Amino acid sequence: MIRVSVLYPNNVGSTFDMDYYLGTHMPMLRKKMGAALKGMTVDQGISGGQPGTTASNRVIATLMFDSLEAFERAFGPLASEIQADIPRYTNIAPTVQISEVKM
Amino acid sequence: MIRVSVLYPNNVGSTFDMDYYLGTHMPMLRKKMGAALKGMTVDQGISGGQPGTTASNRVIATLMFDSLEAFERAFGPLASEIQADIPRYTNIAPTVQISEVKM
Repeated sequence: MIRVSVLYPNNVGSTFDMDYYLGTHMPMLRKKMGAALKGMTVDQGISGGQPGTTASNRVIATLMFDSLEAFERAFGPLASEIQADIPRYTNIAPTVQISEVKM
Repeated sequence: MIRVSVLYPNNVGSTFDMDYYLGTHMPMLRKKMGAALKGMTVDQGISGGQPGTTASNRVIATLMFDSLEAFERAFGPLASEIQADIPRYTNIAPTVQISEVKM
C-alpha cells in the first residue's frame, strides 16, 4: 500500500479555501480516481507540537493506493486537470511525497 | 478528532532504524497511551511527487486522538520517556504538528 501526502506549508501570506477543497476539489479527485483510490484524509493544522506554536503545514492531505503503479495509472491522466484546480483554493505550492505504508 | 503528525525530514547524513521504530518505539507508544490512542500510521518515504525525486520526509508517522485534551492527557506524562527514545532509532529532530481531521 502506498500513501501520497500533499503538504501545504504554512507560508506567511498564504490563502486556503477549505470549503472549496472539501466540497469540490477532493470530491472531484474521489470521483475521477474511482476504485483505485483506497482512502483520503484532510487535516487542517492547529499548532506545532507545543500549544500556541505555529503548525508547519496549513493543510496535509493524503491519498492511498494499492501500489505505485495503481497511483500512476489513476493520477497520470488527471494530473493537468488536478493541478489546474489548485489556484482555485490556494496560493501555496504544495510539496508532494509518495511513501510506503509500513504500519 | 485530531491527528498528530511527526515528520522526519530527509536530511543528508540522517539515519533511521525502521526495525526499532516499528518493533519497539511505536508499540511502546501504543501500550502506554492505551485507549486514548485511536490510530497510528507509519509511512516510509519513497520519492517526491515525480518518480526518481527525493522524498522531503524520510518517515511520516501519525497518531490519532479524540481531542486535543485527550492527546495532552495521554502524551504529557510520557513526553520525556518518548523523547528519550528518539536517539535510539534516529539522529533526525522530527517536526511535530497537531491538526484537526476534516475528512
